[in-house]
Amino acid sequence: MQTLFPSLTASGRRFLRGLFPGDGALFAPEELVGFSGDAGQEQALPGAVVRPEQEEQIQDLLRWAHLERIPVYARARATNKVGQTVPVRGGVVVSFLRMDRVLDVDEQDFVAVVQPGVVTGAFQRGLEARGLFYPPDPASVNISTLGGNVATCAGGMRALKYGVTRDHVLGMRAVLPGGEVLALGSRCHKDVAGLDLTRLLAGSAGTLALFSELTLKLLPKPEASVSVLAGFRDFSEALQAAAQVFRAGLLPSALEFMDRVTLEALAVEYAEKPGDHDWLNRAGAALLFRLDGSGVAVETEGRTLETALRGSAGQGPLFLERASGVDEEGLWEVRRSISPSLFHLAPDKSGEDVAVPRGRVLEAVQGLHAIGERLGLRTACFGHLGDGNLHANILYDRSKGQAEAAQQAKSALFDLVLSLGGTLTGEHGIGLSKRAWMSRQLGPAEQDVMRRMKDVFDPHGIMNPGKEWE
Amino acid sequence: MQTLFPSLTASGRRFLRGLFPGDGALFAPEELVGFSGDAGQEQALPGAVVRPEQEEQIQDLLRWAHLERIPVYARARATNKVGQTVPVRGGVVVSFLRMDRVLDVDEQDFVAVVQPGVVTGAFQRGLEARGLFYPPDPASVNISTLGGNVATCAGGMRALKYGVTRDHVLGMRAVLPGGEVLALGSRCHKDVAGLDLTRLLAGSAGTLALFSELTLKLLPKPEASVSVLAGFRDFSEALQAAAQVFRAGLLPSALEFMDRVTLEALAVEYAEKPGDHDWLNRAGAALLFRLDGSGVAVETEGRTLETALRGSAGQGPLFLERASGVDEEGLWEVRRSISPSLFHLAPDKSGEDVAVPRGRVLEAVQGLHAIGERLGLRTACFGHLGDGNLHANILYDRSKGQAEAAQQAKSALFDLVLSLGGTLTGEHGIGLSKRAWMSRQLGPAEQDVMRRMKDVFDPHGIMNPGKEWE
Repeated sequence: MQTLFPSLTASGRRFLRGLFPGDGALFAPEELVGFSGDAGQEQALPGAVVRPEQEEQIQDLLRWAHLERIPVYARARATNKVGQTVPVRGGVVVSFLRMDRVLDVDEQDFVAVVQPGVVTGAFQRGLEARGLFYPPDPASVNISTLGGNVATCAGGMRALKYGVTRDHVLGMRAVLPGGEVLALGSRCHKDVAGLDLTRLLAGSAGTLALFSELTLKLLPKPEASVSVLAGFRDFSEALQAAAQVFRAGLLPSALEFMDRVTLEALAVEYAEKPGDHDWLNRAGAALLFRLDGSGVAVETEGRTLETALRGSAGQGPLFLERASGVDEEGLWEVRRSISPSLFHLAPDKSGEDVAVPRGRVLEAVQGLHAIGERLGLRTACFGHLGDGNLHANILYDRSKGQAEAAQQAKSALFDLVLSLGGTLTGEHGIGLSKRAWMSRQLGPAEQDVMRRMKDVFDPHGIMNPGKEWE
Repeated sequence: MQTLFPSLTASGRRFLRGLFPGDGALFAPEELVGFSGDAGQEQALPGAVVRPEQEEQIQDLLRWAHLERIPVYARARATNKVGQTVPVRGGVVVSFLRMDRVLDVDEQDFVAVVQPGVVTGAFQRGLEARGLFYPPDPASVNISTLGGNVATCAGGMRALKYGVTRDHVLGMRAVLPGGEVLALGSRCHKDVAGLDLTRLLAGSAGTLALFSELTLKLLPKPEASVSVLAGFRDFSEALQAAAQVFRAGLLPSALEFMDRVTLEALAVEYAEKPGDHDWLNRAGAALLFRLDGSGVAVETEGRTLETALRGSAGQGPLFLERASGVDEEGLWEVRRSISPSLFHLAPDKSGEDVAVPRGRVLEAVQGLHAIGERLGLRTACFGHLGDGNLHANILYDRSKGQAEAAQQAKSALFDLVLSLGGTLTGEHGIGLSKRAWMSRQLGPAEQDVMRRMKDVFDPHGIMNPGKEWE
């Protein structure tokens, strides 16, 4: 049942103008339009955009919005792909980009305190210069923010070894609808006093509270890393090779995979680039590993990894490149090129971040391909093999009337994934675009508890309404 | 305000006897007394003990207890030190020891599905034989259970590298008061569909629901490990050495410390054992590191660690021993001997698992010693340096009338720790014994939200009443 929210009145606009002076509040449609969508396809115009610079403004805003029943949508760089920041019920978009200060980095405590609008990649580079390390690295790392990462519990490449964003949040200040501030957690690396509200809010996607400050756990920066890119004849061979690596007792910080169609797209992308990329045309699957640790350890582990790959079932990889130092990023450039490269094969794509139990990855990839064949569409699969987190891409051409088939393929993919014991989303969230499927994964009892917990935080349902399990 | 619960009636006993036939339900005081306490000092007699063997029994039990307002206390091996399992309001103790089956270990999924009564250490040894690894290792690992570990979000030695229990729980089946079962999470290593109820229940200490099944994340077993025990002239020198290790880019799986008084107790313990233990009498502090990973990596990292320690400020350690393979456990035997050894110095002790930000460990240790001196008591501090998680022990002699001073020291310790931005508990929980201090750490707003979340799960307050923030 959709809640009906009132429109922003003239007095509401006056209130916001007073609270966010100058260009801190925007109302003109031509200004609002830039805040209507994210990296997904849905869009909706808010009634206003506000840009807080301090916690007190967020408190006053949420006191007012709670009383007046005005929807509130948090947003920073809006790199989300499932419409999580889209203001589908109008109301106010809260942009966190002016709360972008790193308040404290403490090399003794191994802790950083930040405002939510800090860009993750820039934060990480600042830390690395000081010998510190914040592991979470969603693909959007250079544009997305820590606040957005925490709100969505962002994953990324290094989750296999280091876990996801949730595992690196020690505490936060969170403003509730009504304006009250919760000070949760601490700078302690371990803290079990009371219920774990910190990890509940991490990943709650703006449906419960707004963050005004985050306390993050840091690690010592690994001294070195090495990466290995290997091409195999087919997907089974690649999976056997990966199993061999685990059997050798190695825990890579990243383990990415690419299927045949992904490699085909990369072959087009790399055709005119220097170097011999012919293996991209011949391989049926590829794996990309990264190991990190102390310099000598990484060097020897890199060799162990290579041996494990060469000694794996079949004839060993048909391509293998190991790189460290400045050359290493060249291998990761291949990985980062995937998403844009897929447009060489089709003008439109629908990419879903489903996850399955690790042992079901082959079935998921083959199943996706079968769905594509049945519906006359090409499909490409890549992603985080170590987590079973697949980026399943359905390629299509809207101009040839394939949009409907792509939608059918997406639905069939979700059915497949759930039948394998998987999840609709490993890291992007449910948001708008997977809402219709939510009840296929979560039963009524689970959704009921979630709804009642939401009521504790947000009894009037003003926080990111129209998303998730609502 | 204390809720008044009804006593168990004759018809209640009949109900329990029917639901838990044979010796599945106990009522005789001489049988109940064994279920009245845990590793802390508090005790209370329940009205009954029941021993479920399957989920349906837990459902029926919680349906009845919810209707009849009967307190329910979950318990397995009851190794908790803060009275978390003590049935202070009477009612029913639920022993999980008959739900002790490992239901599934999947080497492809890197997942195990277990019942809550499985003993953690036995589970881990079973995994290791298959090349798998479940990292959490509370000191009680060989006697405590996975259900208890998850309920308390147990920490342990390896948290520095691998995180705590919460970080290794992928999903669970949890029975709510009223009997409904929640199926939460999945076998996926990443899953962000809906609110994260799995991590909310991990660490909720039996106050929200009872677990009937747990899905745990596994890792490949590290091929090898090496440990280094080093003695230093004083605590500052030890801390500088630890900082040097982090600066070398090493991330030990464990980093334990021992202060002067702890070493003194160990010196007594080891006096008559073979080997040269004289350094225990001379050192002012000691550190114990463990590194794990592939064989060659660990070998070289062990040397890097040793170099970092020898090259640290001052004259380097006055004692250093590096061991791997069968000799390694000898070093950890020293660590495990601490708790019993402290009784060489005093017949009574109060041990608190406070945590502070990592950079405040020196102040915490020195502050504890100062409190002891002021009150005429000896104090010993050891624990997980890497997490800032201190086991602060106040040594006293009840027979000499020192119990009151010990209580004052405990209160002063909590004040000290909170003034350093620390927490009352890094891993043991609040339970009964730290309840009186809870409001010094958590403000009214935070406690209010916790209470209202508890109401969502347990509106009649029957789950582990009398503990935590209640």
